[in-house]
Amino acid sequence: MTTNHQVLLDNRPKGEASASNFKLVSTDVPALQEGQVLVRHHFLSLDPYMRGRMNDAKSYADPHPLGTPMIGGTVGEVVESRSPKFSVGDKVVGMGGWQEYSVVEASQFGALRKVDTTHVPLSHYLGAVGMPGVTAWYGLVKIIAPKAGDTVVVSAATGAVGSAYAALAKARGCHVVGIAGGPDKCDYAVKELGFDVCIDYKLHKDAFSLSKSLKDACPKGIDGYFENVGGMVLDAVMLRMNAFGRIAVCGMIAGYDGQPLPMAYPALILSNRLKVEGFIVSEHMEVWPEALNELGTLVGTGKLRPRESVAQGLASAPEAFLGLLKGKNFGKQLVKLI
Amino acid sequence: MTTNHQVLLDNRPKGEASASNFKLVSTDVPALQEGQVLVRHHFLSLDPYMRGRMNDAKSYADPHPLGTPMIGGTVGEVVESRSPKFSVGDKVVGMGGWQEYSVVEASQFGALRKVDTTHVPLSHYLGAVGMPGVTAWYGLVKIIAPKAGDTVVVSAATGAVGSAYAALAKARGCHVVGIAGGPDKCDYAVKELGFDVCIDYKLHKDAFSLSKSLKDACPKGIDGYFENVGGMVLDAVMLRMNAFGRIAVCGMIAGYDGQPLPMAYPALILSNRLKVEGFIVSEHMEVWPEALNELGTLVGTGKLRPRESVAQGLASAPEAFLGLLKGKNFGKQLVKLI
Repeated sequence: MTTNHQVLLDNRPKGEASASNFKLVSTDVPALQEGQVLVRHHFLSLDPYMRGRMNDAKSYADPHPLGTPMIGGTVGEVVESRSPKFSVGDKVVGMGGWQEYSVVEASQFGALRKVDTTHVPLSHYLGAVGMPGVTAWYGLVKIIAPKAGDTVVVSAATGAVGSAYAALAKARGCHVVGIAGGPDKCDYAVKELGFDVCIDYKLHKDAFSLSKSLKDACPKGIDGYFENVGGMVLDAVMLRMNAFGRIAVCGMIAGYDGQPLPMAYPALILSNRLKVEGFIVSEHMEVWPEALNELGTLVGTGKLRPRESVAQGLASAPEAFLGLLKGKNFGKQLVKLI
Repeated sequence: MTTNHQVLLDNRPKGEASASNFKLVSTDVPALQEGQVLVRHHFLSLDPYMRGRMNDAKSYADPHPLGTPMIGGTVGEVVESRSPKFSVGDKVVGMGGWQEYSVVEASQFGALRKVDTTHVPLSHYLGAVGMPGVTAWYGLVKIIAPKAGDTVVVSAATGAVGSAYAALAKARGCHVVGIAGGPDKCDYAVKELGFDVCIDYKLHKDAFSLSKSLKDACPKGIDGYFENVGGMVLDAVMLRMNAFGRIAVCGMIAGYDGQPLPMAYPALILSNRLKVEGFIVSEHMEVWPEALNELGTLVGTGKLRPRESVAQGLASAPEAFLGLLKGKNFGKQLVKLI
């Protein structure tokens, strides 16, 4: 018998999430049924959306069930197969969850996808050439839809989504401005990720102060904004939006612990004829091939060089995840499982 | 010489608008130049957007200049013409402002439009078959874009926009719910305007209470919302929006006096993948012919029977306008000038 380790959601957070919400357990990997494959996970992806699933609240997805392994994207290798679709040694990406192994029904559409690691490292299929990259692509291309010369902004600029956003927006001839926390991240955003300017929101105590800084960074105003955080950052950006600006709402991490997170100036939606649109990338599977193709090319040609924060071993997943929620990671947060 | 009376914007409101912001004056109608026509106004339209123009604040339009007649839509009759495009006796709609006469450059595109009063009373060209009607049409058809069976909601339900919205939405097979102030308006909305249900927001002290009432009125949730007011009403509706709901933002009258008007739950934009879009109907002139054609037909066939509140004489315009801002009008607010 092979032993699997799993991190379960043990109980729901009251306010801020903590390590005590999770529980590490050992189980045996079950014998495969016909049509199943066994995947050994190499990397687990940690993403802000997971925090929302921990709550027992109505959202776009059901709450994550207690006592089961946390949901999560994984890349790994097929180590046993009872399906003609996959062979031992295939590199695959899937939603294996916070565990070392997963048993997958190979015939289930979209459950497991073979990937090519010739030009793209396996881990990048969880980031720039995976869900976060496609998320950036959808928000930028389908909602913001910039033309060359537009000014576009993103919060959480050095994260997996922000990194891809910068490369995609520069490829479209935009003036690209990031918002991130701390001088190291801002420096990296400009020097490595291609942002024209990056603003350190930690230097600003309120939306008006941040908004003044945005005015300097965006002398022609803001045409498109990709929202990952909400709160004061959203308010500050809205004060600088041009007429007919577009805001793609991907995340509001500032409100994930349940604190009130009002939008201070919704009347700007009217006075500037803004479009504010929320989206979930998994509901737009039709764009994935086109998006992954562009993202893979950007990575393969060195135009997108995403940084990774890698925690070691499954047991480190809870702390790494809590750090991600506080912005302690630098680039795409992964857990190495092998 | 013919004497004209005008209501000027004399000074800007500090907080709430008041009659002292306006000034009634007499002037002489100037002699016409070649290419000009003189219009005697029969009706002046009063609309909430005028309140925004009184402020000295950045918005979609420049502030209204002090010492000039307030902006406003008018219908009337050509009484003198030095243009081949118009004859004495023509019934016309234009933006004549708060005055009894206006001199119009006939060649200026869109400045003056001849209308047919065979099936549609002249005053309706300021309401159901005019700017407010097209406003309802654009928000419903172009932003909310409902399908038959969708539940769609509008605030300020018995106003000029709300009345047209109900008829347009019923024609598309929607379940149509209004929000209005007071039992008389709600009764009228259901009995005369075709709303399936109308909720009296004055019975509710907060967004949660109003939201419960919306739950009963909209058992399948809300697919589209046309926003005229903002504040607590917007919060209450957002709590009931279905996934992929659309909110057309046309007005936020609750914040016109400058008080803070936050949106309490912007995270719902993400969790329900909402689209929230502001618009100004005068920026979409391409839809006017199609919209006016449908609205004219609805009025001509009796499917849209808009109510009018008519104040008598130009001097009554300021008080009638201030009443409109407080919801004292019942249906389209006009001033009869002849």
